Amino acid sequence: MARWQPGTRGRLQDAALELFASRGYEQTTAAEIARSVGLTERTFFRHFSDKREVLFGGQERLTEAFVRGIEAAPDDATPMEAVGDALDVATGLFPDDMRPHSRLRQTVIDQHPALQERERHKMSGVATTIGDALRARGVGEPAATLAAESASTVFGIAFSQWIQDGESRSLGDISRAVLAELRDLTGADRAPR
Amino acid sequence: MARWQPGTRGRLQDAALELFASRGYEQTTAAEIARSVGLTERTFFRHFSDKREVLFGGQERLTEAFVRGIEAAPDDATPMEAVGDALDVATGLFPDDMRPHSRLRQTVIDQHPALQERERHKMSGVATTIGDALRARGVGEPAATLAAESASTVFGIAFSQWIQDGESRSLGDISRAVLAELRDLTGADRAPR
Repeated sequence: MARWQPGTRGRLQDAALELFASRGYEQTTAAEIARSVGLTERTFFRHFSDKREVLFGGQERLTEAFVRGIEAAPDDATPMEAVGDALDVATGLFPDDMRPHSRLRQTVIDQHPALQERERHKMSGVATTIGDALRARGVGEPAATLAAESASTVFGIAFSQWIQDGESRSLGDISRAVLAELRDLTGADRAPR
Repeated sequence: MARWQPGTRGRLQDAALELFASRGYEQTTAAEIARSVGLTERTFFRHFSDKREVLFGGQERLTEAFVRGIEAAPDDATPMEAVGDALDVATGLFPDDMRPHSRLRQTVIDQHPALQERERHKMSGVATTIGDALRARGVGEPAATLAAESASTVFGIAFSQWIQDGESRSLGDISRAVLAELRDLTGADRAPR
């Protein structure tokens, strides 16, 4: 599997993920993670504040990618067009060779309610920041929050699909398909009743 | 303020909320809540499993209301029409005389990250159940999840607005306005770029 990140941090992440998946998250200590790749606990803590951060340290990059996408959208882009651009930037952080990693990470998270809670918290923070970036473009309420929550929902659905066994489309392609589906779903004229 | 619920349960809820808001959630015990309305701790625990349940005990009713709304939607309703009907049923649980209660409850929750986390968890569970109800109608993926998450988002935004100081519209009216905004936002044709 390709590394999440290069260098020592990447080695520690790889090792942690393998141990979390094989032995269990609770049962794995920072010292064991470090030792399994010939490093010391001290080195581990130079790179991560705790073992949970191995799983969630990517949040900042993800948030930044969304914000970058929103900020780079053309001035005349609608809120949802800006969200589409942001999804393209954010999904670009996950090339196909990261899929096995992301799948393994999800397996670990799915086994622990506390980690699932942390994941929800993370995505809620991402949505809040996207909303801020949209408001900074002059998007009002509730449009900014609706568009930001939609971005987070589309990303979450696309990501879950991307790591399914047998799925071969890129995360970006899935994300664009889910966004199009959202447009069809919510944009349909209300039939006369 | 009107009671959340009639009888002893309602009295305990009212008393708990007042104490949480005035003294702090952490500092208030079940025994104190009971004592403040002349009841025993034992009585408290006949109605609630713990003091957190005073704040979150309504989740089941909310979920049921959404499901009832989805199930009662006409067979030919689109997923978002069913969601609109479900929002009407769910928002009907919150008549205007409950607004001061809901506002006070939110104040308590906003002060405690653990309660905010619990609230997110709750809304995530509501969205999952709405998705199940849509799938039971034959709605496929990702439409069911998108529609369910949109229902939860619209409800959340509408609810936040409903408890703002000075807001006088009903929760149902706000919810319908937010849903319409979502339709406008996501349904707009993508401008040629």
